[in-house]
Amino acid sequence: MNVSYQQAAEFLLQSDDFVILCHQNPDGDTLGSGYALWNALTNLGKRAVIRCSDPVPHKLRHVTAGYREEPFEPKTVVSVDIADEQLFGEGISEYLSKVDLAVDHHASHAFFAKRVLLEPDAAANCEIICQLIRELGAPFTPQIAACLYTGMATDTGCFKFSNTTPRTHRLAAEMMEAGCDYAAISRAIFDAKSAGEFAIEREALNSLEVHFGGKAALIVLTQDMYRRCGVTEAEADGLSGLPRKLEGVEVGIAIKERGPGEYKISMRSAEYVNVSELCRVFGGGGHLRAAGCSINGTLDEVKTLILGAVGRVLEETV
Amino acid sequence: MNVSYQQAAEFLLQSDDFVILCHQNPDGDTLGSGYALWNALTNLGKRAVIRCSDPVPHKLRHVTAGYREEPFEPKTVVSVDIADEQLFGEGISEYLSKVDLAVDHHASHAFFAKRVLLEPDAAANCEIICQLIRELGAPFTPQIAACLYTGMATDTGCFKFSNTTPRTHRLAAEMMEAGCDYAAISRAIFDAKSAGEFAIEREALNSLEVHFGGKAALIVLTQDMYRRCGVTEAEADGLSGLPRKLEGVEVGIAIKERGPGEYKISMRSAEYVNVSELCRVFGGGGHLRAAGCSINGTLDEVKTLILGAVGRVLEETV
Repeated sequence: MNVSYQQAAEFLLQSDDFVILCHQNPDGDTLGSGYALWNALTNLGKRAVIRCSDPVPHKLRHVTAGYREEPFEPKTVVSVDIADEQLFGEGISEYLSKVDLAVDHHASHAFFAKRVLLEPDAAANCEIICQLIRELGAPFTPQIAACLYTGMATDTGCFKFSNTTPRTHRLAAEMMEAGCDYAAISRAIFDAKSAGEFAIEREALNSLEVHFGGKAALIVLTQDMYRRCGVTEAEADGLSGLPRKLEGVEVGIAIKERGPGEYKISMRSAEYVNVSELCRVFGGGGHLRAAGCSINGTLDEVKTLILGAVGRVLEETV
Repeated sequence: MNVSYQQAAEFLLQSDDFVILCHQNPDGDTLGSGYALWNALTNLGKRAVIRCSDPVPHKLRHVTAGYREEPFEPKTVVSVDIADEQLFGEGISEYLSKVDLAVDHHASHAFFAKRVLLEPDAAANCEIICQLIRELGAPFTPQIAACLYTGMATDTGCFKFSNTTPRTHRLAAEMMEAGCDYAAISRAIFDAKSAGEFAIEREALNSLEVHFGGKAALIVLTQDMYRRCGVTEAEADGLSGLPRKLEGVEVGIAIKERGPGEYKISMRSAEYVNVSELCRVFGGGGHLRAAGCSINGTLDEVKTLILGAVGRVLEETV
């Protein structure tokens, strides 16, 4: 059942002993939503805990400031920024089919909860949480502002993606006025890099190859490079977007060694190549402009296979 | 003489045949200011040209859309985002001591013009131009919005730097409503990189030095590197922000060779060092968290001088 902001707020005000669920592999929007709501409910004198299948990434740890847990028997389950129960993950599977209120902004929302507060035009779920907290009559503390700013900034790629709206900017302005340290938050989530991340980026740039008259670019990341730079595969994952940033590149390819003779390939396209289809040839898939697949073989074999497929598609679409 | 928005607008409305001056090595804010003002004045039926010592960088070329020049005898000189006549450069030196109105947001403004519209709290000079255009009663066309958005986004590092204010976000929202293609602009100015820019970034990463227990980081950019990578100084200018991105760094330093024995230093701080004061020691200036100066000598001499000054400040502020 779809509910309005007022109905969602009334439900929260009448309930207590909350479990707030965030999606697996959590990003700034699900965590910002969850921790903002935790702060708002706690400030209203209610009890709440947050549950997520995976830990809070290092760059987002500021959203957890002030968080604490007391033991209590959960009575009310709220999910934030979760489009589908498949995104619960193992760690919170006990709450499957038990969500009392889902707050979400995905157009693909699967309506798994008793009540759904859905606004698919919101750039970030945190925009909805912002309005919901206003409706609850809870004060916008600096910590709540920090959580909500984090979600809005991350889900819009720092206000750059085409989902950003004038409302996103105006709410960001309000969060700044509510006292969040947006500059420190932005540095942490967008700019700050460890020495290892700098080192692996340099190595990735050194591996950059350009093919097909500049229409494709490729980098290689190996286990040796991760070891040498002291980074995890997850920390290096953002580099998958690097080859497509080269001007004129339609297909950006990152070949990432998983183990001996095992490679994961990430592909990004700029404007017209369907990389999801391209990756399906190798048993993979994904989105139109961002997809992946796995191939076993030597690095040279993998490169030849991938470049062959990319070359054919680029030729067809010229 | 300081003038108000109303006085500046009255002066512009009473004048005609404008030369609009942008600073050398132009960035998004000086060009966004200049081209927005050109559009506004032209839409009011006036004649204007834009002059700058250096060409418009490739990724900012969208601000020039619709720009055209007719021959006329210039009568009124307006400078935008120029703190000091030293930033005119050779190409516009004929206008030295001839500026009728300077519109600027640098706290270090040198008051070289007959009239000065100065707002040092503005994150971007484009915020001032925005208010000035409102005062002129000129319409906010999509092209003017694109110019002003460009200046606000670039001077705040995409709304991330601590100079960003709630007003910056609210004006960005207004520019979006006025019809600028902010997503395409953001891709062009923040994400797309030429092969030369990739190459110079790699060289800059190779030059990275860390000092004072990780509190300062430094890169060097030389004319040799520009030549080797096939980029202009302006195209490499964005790299000034790179050293501060290293986690734990308070002061990021970029030493940029301008000519034999001539260096320009860009400094950025994260949280507490006043780099404007730091640069003033060497005859430079700028903003609290982003400033610059020029020093002549060998690279080693320049490095020693700068690191000495940075080390002293870091010691004092511990």
